[in-house]
Amino acid sequence: MIFRQLFDSVSGTYSYLLASRRGGEALIIDPVLEKVDRYLQLVNELDLRLVKAVDTHLHADHITGLGALRDKTHCVTVMGEQTKADVVSMRLADGDKLGIEGLALDVIYTPGHTDDSYSFVLPDRVFTGDTLLIRGTGRTDFQNGDPRQQYESIFGRLLKLPDETMIFPAHDYKGETVSTIGEEKAFNPRLQVKSVDEYVHIMNNLNLSNPKMMDVAVPANMRVGLHQDDIAARGWAVSAELALALVGRPDVALIDLREQSERERHGVIPGAIHLPYARLQENIAAGGMLHELAKSTSKQLLFYCAFGERSAMAVQAAQDVGISSARHIQGGIDAWRKASGPLMH
Amino acid sequence: MIFRQLFDSVSGTYSYLLASRRGGEALIIDPVLEKVDRYLQLVNELDLRLVKAVDTHLHADHITGLGALRDKTHCVTVMGEQTKADVVSMRLADGDKLGIEGLALDVIYTPGHTDDSYSFVLPDRVFTGDTLLIRGTGRTDFQNGDPRQQYESIFGRLLKLPDETMIFPAHDYKGETVSTIGEEKAFNPRLQVKSVDEYVHIMNNLNLSNPKMMDVAVPANMRVGLHQDDIAARGWAVSAELALALVGRPDVALIDLREQSERERHGVIPGAIHLPYARLQENIAAGGMLHELAKSTSKQLLFYCAFGERSAMAVQAAQDVGISSARHIQGGIDAWRKASGPLMH
Repeated sequence: MIFRQLFDSVSGTYSYLLASRRGGEALIIDPVLEKVDRYLQLVNELDLRLVKAVDTHLHADHITGLGALRDKTHCVTVMGEQTKADVVSMRLADGDKLGIEGLALDVIYTPGHTDDSYSFVLPDRVFTGDTLLIRGTGRTDFQNGDPRQQYESIFGRLLKLPDETMIFPAHDYKGETVSTIGEEKAFNPRLQVKSVDEYVHIMNNLNLSNPKMMDVAVPANMRVGLHQDDIAARGWAVSAELALALVGRPDVALIDLREQSERERHGVIPGAIHLPYARLQENIAAGGMLHELAKSTSKQLLFYCAFGERSAMAVQAAQDVGISSARHIQGGIDAWRKASGPLMH
Repeated sequence: MIFRQLFDSVSGTYSYLLASRRGGEALIIDPVLEKVDRYLQLVNELDLRLVKAVDTHLHADHITGLGALRDKTHCVTVMGEQTKADVVSMRLADGDKLGIEGLALDVIYTPGHTDDSYSFVLPDRVFTGDTLLIRGTGRTDFQNGDPRQQYESIFGRLLKLPDETMIFPAHDYKGETVSTIGEEKAFNPRLQVKSVDEYVHIMNNLNLSNPKMMDVAVPANMRVGLHQDDIAARGWAVSAELALALVGRPDVALIDLREQSERERHGVIPGAIHLPYARLQENIAAGGMLHELAKSTSKQLLFYCAFGERSAMAVQAAQDVGISSARHIQGGIDAWRKASGPLMH
């Protein structure tokens, strides 16, 4: 595995670049906006292809690099389903897998620091965001933080991992880079409590001032979505309401860009072909299956995904290679459901 | 292996704690004075015993933690044989092994940043000090730095390591934590040169200002030695000149505390028993071999080592457990040789 821990000294944020091999797909966890160019340089140098950018939660102390990375690489942005970010490409829930080629991280919902806090687990390590820090825990006094939930997330979930599991948090301010579950169990001062009430008492009496960047970072991080209007202005978007009339028509090929887990959880538009977004490029390139479908028939290609981000990027990519019939359902399955579109489970 | 990368954000220094197992011996590379308490807390939490504190070179940008760690733990301080530090317990040369229980690092002399710069190699990683940084190299414009030597150290030694070898430098200022030999070969801008002359030209035209801490750090780091005078004031020291008369006497047990590699390189005082410093505690404890020797005979114990540091600490430790006959040769083999004492090779 290729693994890089990268530090933003301004906000004390650790970001993590992961890939299974040189030349393969990569994902980045908790990227910082100001470091995006460096991440991409490293991705390029290591001969990787960034396919997912993931935030463990909506950060209050730095502006996320998710939007910029998506705009520059067309990667998929990922957060938990509870996030208040306007649009991310993909939302995860407890029990999901966060996957790229050769790697699958277990997704566990660990609310408490915020109500959209997630942790991601590999066999030998866990990315704990701001839930569990090295010799500390993330504050619980804003963004629907809840010390009682955090206690359960830490004691009920994270500390159940094997003692030797390495902990890679989203922050450190004292020069630590890594810890282990066993170490934090034994030496994290906030975890040496006898009850959830004692933990809640500690967390409710920290009396911390707000993060310096909070008033800037939180609003910015809530507006991370792709501007789908640009695609609409070119006439490449179809509203969910109008798309209802296109289902089942022989001259329309509906293409579902989501991953299998999303399809199972949220349902599929009847008759849709499944083409995961990660396979898009090879499919629309000359010689690719979708390229051939578009060229050899007069079918209109109608992409859709969860919230319209992947499909908007797919339309642009298809148009870029000359597939002029490409359109997408603006707002994705989310809009489709709100328009009472039929879904198969 | 237990491995911890620890960051001092003030000086941008990375320090490294290594051990082969919980409960075992540990060494630390490039410790920073201000972080010593944290290192020792971690050593304690991980159930380790710090036995060596090593500087890759005499630092100009922070005060070393070597002296404080030795004073607090009685560990052995280690630097290269060229160092201008007044006294370190042990000096290494190219080709040596830097060993603790379960770990042996290859010692390579990599001058250029300073004339006392060393790198330490494990099968999968190398600690490069300020010789090779991530996407950079250490400046060569003070402390007998020499860009021509550095070119040879980097191109002739470090870059000959396997491409996948991880690089852990003594500094980073941009949030990188690790790189590899292959990566630096390909992407370190200073290494994309066609000749040593081109490298020298680059390094001689960096026009850097001196490190902020230089006027404080360099003098402090040159005075890192143990105050052997304290031991002498208690009457526990014997000068090399006086020790000459004690060799071969039946009522004196000469005890060599050095490691085998030091004995082979610098020779041994005739008749000396070999007791490596790492084995001292178990030997002087009740039931230990040396404890029994001291109690069951009237022999005076005369410790010696390389420069008198280990032997001074050994005298104190022996006195602490009631071995009142313990003395040491002040200044060690270094003083012994200057006094023309006989040495066996």
